[in-house]
Amino acid sequence: MFERLGELLLRRLDAITELTQLPAGRILGRQGEVPAVLYILLDGQAALSATAADGADSVVDVVQPPTHFILAAALTGLPYLMSATTITPCRLLTIQAPALRSLIHTELDLATAMLGAVSRDYRAMVRQVRDLRLRSAAQRLGCYLLARITDEGAGTARFRLPFEKALLASRLGCRQDSLSRAFATLRDYGVETHGGLVIVHDIAGLRAFSLPDEIEEPGVPPA
Amino acid sequence: MFERLGELLLRRLDAITELTQLPAGRILGRQGEVPAVLYILLDGQAALSATAADGADSVVDVVQPPTHFILAAALTGLPYLMSATTITPCRLLTIQAPALRSLIHTELDLATAMLGAVSRDYRAMVRQVRDLRLRSAAQRLGCYLLARITDEGAGTARFRLPFEKALLASRLGCRQDSLSRAFATLRDYGVETHGGLVIVHDIAGLRAFSLPDEIEEPGVPPA
Repeated sequence: MFERLGELLLRRLDAITELTQLPAGRILGRQGEVPAVLYILLDGQAALSATAADGADSVVDVVQPPTHFILAAALTGLPYLMSATTITPCRLLTIQAPALRSLIHTELDLATAMLGAVSRDYRAMVRQVRDLRLRSAAQRLGCYLLARITDEGAGTARFRLPFEKALLASRLGCRQDSLSRAFATLRDYGVETHGGLVIVHDIAGLRAFSLPDEIEEPGVPPA
Repeated sequence: MFERLGELLLRRLDAITELTQLPAGRILGRQGEVPAVLYILLDGQAALSATAADGADSVVDVVQPPTHFILAAALTGLPYLMSATTITPCRLLTIQAPALRSLIHTELDLATAMLGAVSRDYRAMVRQVRDLRLRSAAQRLGCYLLARITDEGAGTARFRLPFEKALLASRLGCRQDSLSRAFATLRDYGVETHGGLVIVHDIAGLRAFSLPDEIEEPGVPPA
């Protein structure tokens, strides 16, 4: 996000930034509160979750480093629409949100960098809306697994799920029993699981079933 | 979006903007294509829809004037993740996207105005993710109806649906038979319908069932 900024601007950003180390399970920001800081995750994993008025809860995303969150709230000074919680020990930068907004109003390079970042955030959220509207739970799981595969040309793949299945179910917008059924469905398409280990025997077959988005996002690694 | 910009900047924007009148059913932008222009809707209604690789289709939003769409694609020059279609005759401004991006890179006021606009777009998409993840179809319909009620203090309300039920079902992310069941469920909470006419006999009761978001969005009218 900051890679094209000049030396002087980076020093001004540095003056409003702190490095923090936090254990797992720490609430970083609570839905409804106005953000005091913008978080940049350097190490670890954090969950962004949405809570209904009756207490029902859903994990909208699990963010992986290096990334920022939740930029739109920090930029507008409007209340968080999601809560953020560390799910592993995390190393984070915190940038003071009001000072960041002041800096943006005088620094064109920073404003355009932020414009690119929040536009890409918007697109990630549209992809999630597409996922929730157009795919079954089994297809969503298939797309999730396909996004974990780094060697595009391979026929098969083998990797570990990055977090436990309860969290994965919530991330995919389904209950744990639906996730189990989704894994059972994917068995017919060559997906084998042993606990957190996933073996995809037929990547092409899984793609044909799951129908991942055909539109690539340049420069954005799969999350 | 442009209200705080200076005279000179507005003239430069004017030079890359055209006014267009289009009939219903016209495709304004197609998923996967790089946007040539940013649309500003002045009159009429347009639908933003997402299409799966197997042709399944879902209406993500029906935009009402005055509003822009799809800003993030126009700002980044990345392909549309949704298609846009006029659903009534529309009066639109079209702003040349490459020229707009050039102008943003020299004009701080324009960059910060766009930053506010795309941040609010992001928040609208997060609200949609919340809606799809946390609410049943009947609750989504309830929230949709509540958002149409302008007199917050009233006990009852009476209004027409702004478009036909097939489109409403798609907008709410459900099939038409699910929408009929959702209307039937809401009857128990005092919602009466006669074709496109809706009578809400007990706004408080509908709120208690539908659990709309409690976080207000300052300056953004319900869409």
